[in-house]
Amino acid sequence: MKFYDFPAAPSPRKVGLFVAEKGLQVPTVTVDLRARAQLQPQFLTKNPAGTVPVLELDDGTCLTESLAICHYLEQLHPEPNLLGADAKEQALVLMWNDIQTLEGYTAIQDVLRNTHAVFKDRAVPGPTPYEQIAALADRGRQQAEAFFDRLETRLGHSRFIASERFTYADIVGFVYFGFAIRTLASDPSAARPNLKRWSEGIAARPAIKGAG
Amino acid sequence: MKFYDFPAAPSPRKVGLFVAEKGLQVPTVTVDLRARAQLQPQFLTKNPAGTVPVLELDDGTCLTESLAICHYLEQLHPEPNLLGADAKEQALVLMWNDIQTLEGYTAIQDVLRNTHAVFKDRAVPGPTPYEQIAALADRGRQQAEAFFDRLETRLGHSRFIASERFTYADIVGFVYFGFAIRTLASDPSAARPNLKRWSEGIAARPAIKGAG
Repeated sequence: MKFYDFPAAPSPRKVGLFVAEKGLQVPTVTVDLRARAQLQPQFLTKNPAGTVPVLELDDGTCLTESLAICHYLEQLHPEPNLLGADAKEQALVLMWNDIQTLEGYTAIQDVLRNTHAVFKDRAVPGPTPYEQIAALADRGRQQAEAFFDRLETRLGHSRFIASERFTYADIVGFVYFGFAIRTLASDPSAARPNLKRWSEGIAARPAIKGAG
Repeated sequence: MKFYDFPAAPSPRKVGLFVAEKGLQVPTVTVDLRARAQLQPQFLTKNPAGTVPVLELDDGTCLTESLAICHYLEQLHPEPNLLGADAKEQALVLMWNDIQTLEGYTAIQDVLRNTHAVFKDRAVPGPTPYEQIAALADRGRQQAEAFFDRLETRLGHSRFIASERFTYADIVGFVYFGFAIRTLASDPSAARPNLKRWSEGIAARPAIKGAG
C-alpha cells in the first residue's frame, strides 16, 4: 500500500489526519503540487483526474477520493472507530461529510481557484485548462460565510459535528476550517463561539497536533 | 421512517432507484420543488439547506444527502448488496460516487442553474439568493463533456462503473446521465459506445423500468 500525499492541500490532509488518528504507518510518497507533479503522465496513470490523495493497493488498484480511502482503511483497521459505530451514526458522518464538502470546501475552493495568480488558466483541478471567473470567487465568499454559520448552529446543538463524539466529520470540518483561514484571510471562528470551542478542541488532540 | 422525495430531481431520484432496487416500500412524501415547498419554514426545520432527499427517522432525526440515506437503508436491509461486498469494492463505490458527483453532477447543475429562467436569482440550491453566472454555465458544459469522456474510458475497462457488477455507483451514473440528457439537450451516449451499452443495460433493469 502506498499513499500519494501533499499535506498542505486540504483533500490529502483529511487522509493524513485520519491515518494519524488511527495510529497507522502508511508508506507515503509526496506529490509536489507546486511543481505540478500531479499532472505528469506517470501520475495520471494512477489518477487521470490529476489530484491527490491516491492510495495505491498492492494489487495495483488506485483508490482516489478521501472518503473512499478512509473507508478502506477503516475496514482494515476498525479501531478507533471514526466512520460511525452504528447505522445512524455512520449515516450522520456521511451526511456531514457531504454537507461540508458541497457547501464549504467547494465554496472556499471557488475563492482560491478563481482569484490566486498561481491558478490562472487552472481554475478547476486537473489537466484541462479553465479560465478564472471572478464572479464565482465572490459567490464562494458568500457561500463560505453561510456554511460557517450553519456549522456554528450545528455546534450549538452537538458537541462534535456528526455526533457527540469525535468522528471523520470533525477531521473534514477541521481541514476545511484551516483551508478557509488560509484562503479567506480571516478566521471564521472569530465571531462564532461554538466554532471556536470546537476548533480549539480538535487542534489540541494529540494525533492532530502530532500531524502538524 | 418517511422519505421526502421529488422524483424528477436527480438527488432524490438516486434514493428512489436505490429503494426500488432493494425492493423496499418506504412511506414517501412528495415535496413539490416547482411550488418551492422545500423553502417553506416547516420543511427547513427538517433540512435547513432546503433540499431533497430527506429521510426522517422515527426518532425525529432527519438524514439528508443521498449517499447517507442509501447507506442507512443498506445497513437495515443488507441484501441485495449495492454499496460493495468487501473493503475494496466498497471503496470503489464511494470513489465513483464522489468522482461522478464532483465532476459530473456539479458540472451539469452549473449549466442548469446558471442558464434556466426558473433559477434566476436561485443559481445555488437553498434559501439564499445567488445571481446566475453565464461563464459558469459555459465551463459546466465543457466539464460535463470531459466527465462523460472519463466514464466512456472507464466503461471500456469495466462492465459496470465501480465493479464488474451493478452497484450504487451505476445508479448515480444513470441518474446523472438522464440529468445531462434533459439539461444539455444532447445524448452523451450518441458518440460513446461504451456509455450506450451500459446505459441501455441499466435502463432495462426491472427495478429501474418499474421506477419510471
